[in-house]
Amino acid sequence: MDAIKAIMERVSTRKFSDRHITDEELRIILDAAMAGPSATNARPFSFIVVRDKEMLGKMADANMKYSEPLRGADVGILVCGDLERAYAAAPDFWVVDGTIAAQNMILAAHALGIGSCWLGTWPVEERVENHKKLFDLPENIIPHSLIAFGFPEGEFRKQKDRYEEDRVHFEKW
Amino acid sequence: MDAIKAIMERVSTRKFSDRHITDEELRIILDAAMAGPSATNARPFSFIVVRDKEMLGKMADANMKYSEPLRGADVGILVCGDLERAYAAAPDFWVVDGTIAAQNMILAAHALGIGSCWLGTWPVEERVENHKKLFDLPENIIPHSLIAFGFPEGEFRKQKDRYEEDRVHFEKW
Repeated sequence: MDAIKAIMERVSTRKFSDRHITDEELRIILDAAMAGPSATNARPFSFIVVRDKEMLGKMADANMKYSEPLRGADVGILVCGDLERAYAAAPDFWVVDGTIAAQNMILAAHALGIGSCWLGTWPVEERVENHKKLFDLPENIIPHSLIAFGFPEGEFRKQKDRYEEDRVHFEKW
Repeated sequence: MDAIKAIMERVSTRKFSDRHITDEELRIILDAAMAGPSATNARPFSFIVVRDKEMLGKMADANMKYSEPLRGADVGILVCGDLERAYAAAPDFWVVDGTIAAQNMILAAHALGIGSCWLGTWPVEERVENHKKLFDLPENIIPHSLIAFGFPEGEFRKQKDRYEEDRVHFEKW
């Protein structure tokens, strides 16, 4: 799929079909996750990839509000930051770097015909703590975002034109 | 350009040619910026688009370390968060949402043959404050990232395979 088309047409998918994501497709999604830039090239991220339905349910519980789509997903990926790898002079860049990884995954998935729903985790402290407990994570590993992946039921819904003129300022504020 | 190819081949470009980005190309980049998801669809972002060379120099000064590529760029875009539009229950999602916008721009640019260099701003407080002063920004507008855009001198350099097995955990940490 054309790159501009994938970026413009990506939608959040909340109802998934029974069709499975192959290991090859999953690998492309994970390749994409690690292909983005990161502050000082620190790459302070890790990924927990889950197919087990019972575990997906527990992750939906951990992520609380708006996380129901994960229960019907084929794969859930918890993007985590890694403070031990983060740029020491400004470690909070881990939030930016984790986001880049997640967005790359979502776009790669869309290009493969795979839908996704981004379930925000950080900065909601309770969600972060719930995932830390669920996966018994080391201290340096911080849950960032939870992405539900699966083939959509039917076609992707149509995306709208989302450009808003008043958000763009030329040369000055 | 194919979407997976754009994601995998994107590189940071630090030397730009004299070729100008057209207004049509710039519009595609800005369309992409606003096409991503955001927490609760709050879309808490704005963009300052600069072509003026003197201003690009001032923005490079404001953004400090590693920001030299902006001086040779054709266009610089300062991505900003907008706290007035942010999801009230967890406003720090603005950092995630601004990052998605920036990464979408970088990928769209690459697909058009346009290079970019992501110059980190937030969370470095001094850079944030410098841009606020330079653009005399309202209180609710927070500088997030500065992206330098331009056609590369010659070809894009080749990207490496960036997958790292030890970053991926299946089913459990």
